[in-house]
Amino acid sequence: MRALTFHAPGEVRIEDKPEPGLEALDDAIVQIDATGVCGSDLHIYRGRLRIEPGFTIGHEYVGTVIAAGDAVTQVSIGDRVAGCFLTACGTCFHCMRGEYQRCVNSRSFGLGSTLGALPGTQAEYALVPHANLTLRRVPDGMSDDVALFAGDVMGTGFHGVAASGLCAGEVAAVLGLGPVGLCAVQAAKLAGARVLAIDSVDDRLGIAASLGATPIHLAEQDVKAEVRAATEGHGGVDVAIDAVGHRDALELAIRLARDCGRVQCIGVYAERTELHLGLAWLKSLTIRGGPANVIAHIDPVLAMLADGRLDPTPFVTHHMSLDDAPEAYAMFDRREALKIVLSP
Amino acid sequence: MRALTFHAPGEVRIEDKPEPGLEALDDAIVQIDATGVCGSDLHIYRGRLRIEPGFTIGHEYVGTVIAAGDAVTQVSIGDRVAGCFLTACGTCFHCMRGEYQRCVNSRSFGLGSTLGALPGTQAEYALVPHANLTLRRVPDGMSDDVALFAGDVMGTGFHGVAASGLCAGEVAAVLGLGPVGLCAVQAAKLAGARVLAIDSVDDRLGIAASLGATPIHLAEQDVKAEVRAATEGHGGVDVAIDAVGHRDALELAIRLARDCGRVQCIGVYAERTELHLGLAWLKSLTIRGGPANVIAHIDPVLAMLADGRLDPTPFVTHHMSLDDAPEAYAMFDRREALKIVLSP
Amino acid sequence: MRALTFHAPGEVRIEDKPEPGLEALDDAIVQIDATGVCGSDLHIYRGRLRIEPGFTIGHEYVGTVIAAGDAVTQVSIGDRVAGCFLTACGTCFHCMRGEYQRCVNSRSFGLGSTLGALPGTQAEYALVPHANLTLRRVPDGMSDDVALFAGDVMGTGFHGVAASGLCAGEVAAVLGLGPVGLCAVQAAKLAGARVLAIDSVDDRLGIAASLGATPIHLAEQDVKAEVRAATEGHGGVDVAIDAVGHRDALELAIRLARDCGRVQCIGVYAERTELHLGLAWLKSLTIRGGPANVIAHIDPVLAMLADGRLDPTPFVTHHMSLDDAPEAYAMFDRREALKIVLSP
Amino acid sequence: MRALTFHAPGEVRIEDKPEPGLEALDDAIVQIDATGVCGSDLHIYRGRLRIEPGFTIGHEYVGTVIAAGDAVTQVSIGDRVAGCFLTACGTCFHCMRGEYQRCVNSRSFGLGSTLGALPGTQAEYALVPHANLTLRRVPDGMSDDVALFAGDVMGTGFHGVAASGLCAGEVAAVLGLGPVGLCAVQAAKLAGARVLAIDSVDDRLGIAASLGATPIHLAEQDVKAEVRAATEGHGGVDVAIDAVGHRDALELAIRLARDCGRVQCIGVYAERTELHLGLAWLKSLTIRGGPANVIAHIDPVLAMLADGRLDPTPFVTHHMSLDDAPEAYAMFDRREALKIVLSP
Repeated sequence: MRALTFHAPGEVRIEDKPEPGLEALDDAIVQIDATGVCGSDLHIYRGRLRIEPGFTIGHEYVGTVIAAGDAVTQVSIGDRVAGCFLTACGTCFHCMRGEYQRCVNSRSFGLGSTLGALPGTQAEYALVPHANLTLRRVPDGMSDDVALFAGDVMGTGFHGVAASGLCAGEVAAVLGLGPVGLCAVQAAKLAGARVLAIDSVDDRLGIAASLGATPIHLAEQDVKAEVRAATEGHGGVDVAIDAVGHRDALELAIRLARDCGRVQCIGVYAERTELHLGLAWLKSLTIRGGPANVIAHIDPVLAMLADGRLDPTPFVTHHMSLDDAPEAYAMFDRREALKIVLSP
Repeated sequence: MRALTFHAPGEVRIEDKPEPGLEALDDAIVQIDATGVCGSDLHIYRGRLRIEPGFTIGHEYVGTVIAAGDAVTQVSIGDRVAGCFLTACGTCFHCMRGEYQRCVNSRSFGLGSTLGALPGTQAEYALVPHANLTLRRVPDGMSDDVALFAGDVMGTGFHGVAASGLCAGEVAAVLGLGPVGLCAVQAAKLAGARVLAIDSVDDRLGIAASLGATPIHLAEQDVKAEVRAATEGHGGVDVAIDAVGHRDALELAIRLARDCGRVQCIGVYAERTELHLGLAWLKSLTIRGGPANVIAHIDPVLAMLADGRLDPTPFVTHHMSLDDAPEAYAMFDRREALKIVLSP
Repeated sequence: MRALTFHAPGEVRIEDKPEPGLEALDDAIVQIDATGVCGSDLHIYRGRLRIEPGFTIGHEYVGTVIAAGDAVTQVSIGDRVAGCFLTACGTCFHCMRGEYQRCVNSRSFGLGSTLGALPGTQAEYALVPHANLTLRRVPDGMSDDVALFAGDVMGTGFHGVAASGLCAGEVAAVLGLGPVGLCAVQAAKLAGARVLAIDSVDDRLGIAASLGATPIHLAEQDVKAEVRAATEGHGGVDVAIDAVGHRDALELAIRLARDCGRVQCIGVYAERTELHLGLAWLKSLTIRGGPANVIAHIDPVLAMLADGRLDPTPFVTHHMSLDDAPEAYAMFDRREALKIVLSP
Repeated sequence: MRALTFHAPGEVRIEDKPEPGLEALDDAIVQIDATGVCGSDLHIYRGRLRIEPGFTIGHEYVGTVIAAGDAVTQVSIGDRVAGCFLTACGTCFHCMRGEYQRCVNSRSFGLGSTLGALPGTQAEYALVPHANLTLRRVPDGMSDDVALFAGDVMGTGFHGVAASGLCAGEVAAVLGLGPVGLCAVQAAKLAGARVLAIDSVDDRLGIAASLGATPIHLAEQDVKAEVRAATEGHGGVDVAIDAVGHRDALELAIRLARDCGRVQCIGVYAERTELHLGLAWLKSLTIRGGPANVIAHIDPVLAMLADGRLDPTPFVTHHMSLDDAPEAYAMFDRREALKIVLSP
């Protein structure tokens, strides 16, 4: 089958790979109908996240079940399914606490051997372990573009909001308006909060405004003053969501949060970082982060996508063939696209 | 009246100061019977925390109400009372959320003008604003030594445990076994948790062991290996309580916590700090800290001190006269004492 | 001053009463601009809730501060204010836990001596004790009709939703679409939930539908079947909100909730009641209720009313003079009005 | 194999039944070493809970794995294991929320066809479906008597305390001191609470007192007055745990709880019941109940049993042979035993 493989920073190729087969009783094989290019894929493409040369990448996908082990009960052959970016076993210490994102047997698609050596979904077919937990039927009438978001980008935005405990009557700031940040804006609006959306790209600020958020331009406005004015009497937002994954964003999040507020990091951190912990401490903040628990949220997220309460359609800017994936990555790297959907 | 004042790093003096009088309707005047020397006082003594020369310091106290404004209803003249290290108004945004430690009108005793310019309690008398929230009658039969801990050190240890959500069936590590750390050990044991107590001072490890914790010597044992062995199958503790307030402690707390675990910082942070945020993120940790909400906990803490479920008696190592406070500070600075109680 | 007083079931009168004066340091006197007729007033009017003949009734109000004690800091003379239906002291056991609705010193307006003997607000002037907690400035541009809802009806609907923990991705059923039920529908929609609205009055179902809820007719539809169909695969709603306060409603709420779901009773219960506790137990339900904690929610509710996220305007069906209050009560008793606003 | 079967109220028999075999990939077969007689078994014995004549009963057990399907990973052949009284699938709507006790595929041991038609454990062998979630290795050195409690009686007591949110600094009342109530007393003490233990049997009150609770005699003392005195200033307990499952107990629990307190029903309810809902509503209580989520708690409960923090040893009053089970049931029915352990 055709599959997109990583070779070196800036170099991905379509190659011929053997088709996957069932290995365990709760495995499924999914024929990929559509697969997205994600910001995490860019970390690989840019060499920040290292994986083995020749490894198939990609982890956002929608497809059709073409084979399933005897223990697979949640989906059937022929089902059109949406999947999560990672798998979970359902029976370990973490799974029994609902912390599926830290399942001790978890494997992530397309992220190399350190994360489970599970080939990616930017291919014609994918092996899906623990299919009962990681696959879901796509609701009737939902497009591939929308379903693609359930188990990754929208799941991450929704998780960030849910994990922060944000609720109606509160105010949130979302820092960074890439696809994940915009999904967080939607989820925060849906939760009833007032939302301040911060970025330096006008187009993204415009989309956030169209979603009902108050846009604040990082470079052209005095962000701290704007936030302080918008949260008069409280001194800051109840929840600051860092959808960037960079020290400056976290530092700003700490400054924008009110005393006893919460900072939720949905952007990816991997390195040592200096931050003003003293300020966070004096403000009695709660700082939380980590990979999103998309498996826990997959059912409600699909339901909210199905009736349009959540709708990532405006974030899909490009459709391309899997064969053109190398060009897609180059475009995405040049920030010329928000979300590219590939079809094998 | 006699009062202990700060003048320069390493220099505190007993001076003559005017006696305080009632200023607001919910003020009380307390004649001090006993007042403790706290780790925060040491920050002042060492110059890390800067206050005005000549300012009266101290914030742990037990005493007798000798005057009270018309709006004071919770205590009466003649009552023997324990107080909190800070005050709260009861009606601001934060107070209405029970976040008394961030009350916008809060003033801390003996910490200089930036924290409310409220003279300290290492004196013969103290003015106590908002007495309804910050003062409580001492239960019959409770010694000054014990009551002194309610609104500061034990309140802080208890708050750390409560804020972390630690519960029976979980495992906690407490890093740093000064008075606050030892109070956290007691509170964590009381909450039903298994407790690993970490320090490098044998005496303190011995006290922790006598409280039912498993002592781990920071220098002589492989802390990470010991914790991993003690939390077999979970990869770390549910809650790591940093009772030190130093980067190395926080770094260790991050390493000792299990995936999806919680880190609670009850030690004081004031500066910018580098930490392995990437590791905390990958582990999906929740990091929380800040001054303790002792006002919220004062009633239950007093009740638990009254029946001995919490008992700081073993942590009081010295009793001295207020007149000898300069010597007390010097001893405490040399780490020759755990808790010194001064009597005016 | 003119004031509406209760005399016997079905009999209320405008009488001349002495104007109130300040009694405590944190009292305020409010000149009433508008005051609503509430379902609880109907309990008095119908004799279900007994109060002293001659007692001034009413507890929904908007007005202007004309006098304030020295300890009143949150509002000033001349401020246009909205008030809560009850008062709280801010310093008792319950207030310190944020349970203002069970304040041990609480007094409710216009509900007779068993609830604090505090004269009602259907009068020209009202005494407001503990004004710092129970009064708030009305945001600029907000009408009396809207502001009136903050401290009672909308506060109750919002409290019901918030106390139930309802969140985006969940489904709620609201039983009973009087003003409180309709406010709960709005609050549940705002929280991001899917909402099923149940009543037997077409007009009310129509309003609920216009708010985005799915209307279900109690008499003309098979409610259980409709709810089961709408919550396919979950067997019921996550949260059932009983806004009626009658055994049949509670029984239905228990049946409509999913296993491990929550039932929130915002309708008033006062009597012994038979219910299918066995069913509730087998379903592992959580049942909660009680007077709403409107004081805790007054600030966010006012903010959400100010920007229109919550909007009770459609529920106000009549404006009348205070002098016509006897006729207003008679109309309301005949169910010819949803919300009547009286002006002194 | 020999198995105890139910035939009619008051009539149970040892019969010969075919040995069970593996049916699904995650099944295990356990050779029973010890099996307890539970209060729920008594419901069957007395005819309150109806099951098919000839059905094998019993659901508390410890044994040895003698066969396991290919998908069983958590235990191995030869392992000495403790089991839970019910099974869960791990992948349904409820399991994914950690609500294992309401798993849509759940089957309870020995409770007849309405609860899954899963033969009981008062037999020589038992089939254990979904073994990964319902079986656990017994920690080294733990006796059968203790291990037997993990997945049923102690799990239920612990669940009641955990679900109520009881914490250090709070006061609990436990109503009914059978094995489950005594386990709840232990769990509540372990959580750091002050515990009032209520029953009318002196022996049971004596055991509760030996566990550190304050015993209150239902008939010989004025329970309400005692509780009020013991919770001076709060008007009642934070949590009332009804371990009886009878209207009178629930009514008392409602009266003993403080305003805004919680009532947790761990006793079994199956019928319609009249209760003073008006009182519960006015007090703003939260009432919760249902079968215990023992699967969620099995690992921490085993850990706490292993180091003695929880210790049901004093509750085991009799050891008998499985062959003498008819006599054991008769004794238990006459209340001559607290916990009887049967060995096949």
